Amino acid sequence: MASSPASARVPQEERTRAMRARLLEATVDCLVERGFAGTSTTLVSERAGVSRGAQLHHFPTKNALVVAAVEHLTEKRGAELAEAAATLPIGPSHTRAVLQVLGDHFASPVFAAALELWNAARTDPALLAAVAPLEQRVGRETHRLTVELLGIDESVPGNRELVQATLDLVRGLGLANTIGNDARRRGRILDRWAEVLEREIP
Amino acid sequence: MASSPASARVPQEERTRAMRARLLEATVDCLVERGFAGTSTTLVSERAGVSRGAQLHHFPTKNALVVAAVEHLTEKRGAELAEAAATLPIGPSHTRAVLQVLGDHFASPVFAAALELWNAARTDPALLAAVAPLEQRVGRETHRLTVELLGIDESVPGNRELVQATLDLVRGLGLANTIGNDARRRGRILDRWAEVLEREIP
Repeated sequence: MASSPASARVPQEERTRAMRARLLEATVDCLVERGFAGTSTTLVSERAGVSRGAQLHHFPTKNALVVAAVEHLTEKRGAELAEAAATLPIGPSHTRAVLQVLGDHFASPVFAAALELWNAARTDPALLAAVAPLEQRVGRETHRLTVELLGIDESVPGNRELVQATLDLVRGLGLANTIGNDARRRGRILDRWAEVLEREIP
Repeated sequence: MASSPASARVPQEERTRAMRARLLEATVDCLVERGFAGTSTTLVSERAGVSRGAQLHHFPTKNALVVAAVEHLTEKRGAELAEAAATLPIGPSHTRAVLQVLGDHFASPVFAAALELWNAARTDPALLAAVAPLEQRVGRETHRLTVELLGIDESVPGNRELVQATLDLVRGLGLANTIGNDARRRGRILDRWAEVLEREIP
């Protein structure tokens, strides 16, 4: 009663934001641990400690929840990726270090969560309609960051395709990693790919 | 009554083999169209026109059925891959032609079916125990065929990793293709990859 309407609104907005974040993070955890089929809105609200009513108010369907969750985590990880990139060494080991950051990114639980969503979208047209634009946006953003990190001039013919190949390679390595720890093999492949990139893009 | 026991057994064995093949192919179709979660043993027996009893006799669980189905299809597609490989052109376009065969292989419905199984295995330890050895065997076989097709000497340091990178690349391209037709982009990336391989492995 003592607080003004404006100051009362701020804590409420913060509480809402925190609750949404808890829901989204619980959703990603569920996707990683139980897969898309094993993820339910009931389970998520329990894990997040959020009432069913509040959850349904913010995310009326499972699809709305999982798309928002993967989007949320992608943004968070994108920021982490950019941050890791900012501390990379300059010099001959730079290319290899960039590949390590990308390889780690695609071997993280976020990739597993995104893969669950992607896989479910393949056979669910409504989910695909929501996932496809997100994937395009994420793809463009990751491409842009990779070009920047590798310091590549994309106006040179063939360079754009090398960046795309690099990202499809780490995506393939990420997939191989989902059913077993593949870090050693991945390390050797990225060593070799760094040599190639340095020769192709001096 | 006129036929001897031996000649009676042959048609029976053939009928059994044909029935198993129908079950396995119906399973793959279900995986591709409805995903792992949408695939049930009831649905498969209906599609294959096989009684529930006969189906359960051959494949007592859904996991047994899907693992056998992906194995069956992998063998069939492996044979197709080897056959396609046998007719490849000799000469400067050979590397690009090999990459096309591999890229098409990983963009086929078989890959989608395998991906469903792979993804489900990530969060199902019993399924993973069955899928992991199959994946290793398939992985080794695809690697061996790629080495042979590209005519690569793996005793040269770095060559093995380039073959692995090539297979992880086409796996990543296959994944990108699952939620949209990516053939044009894939073609340009494989053009560029062929240039790289020819320079790295003269």
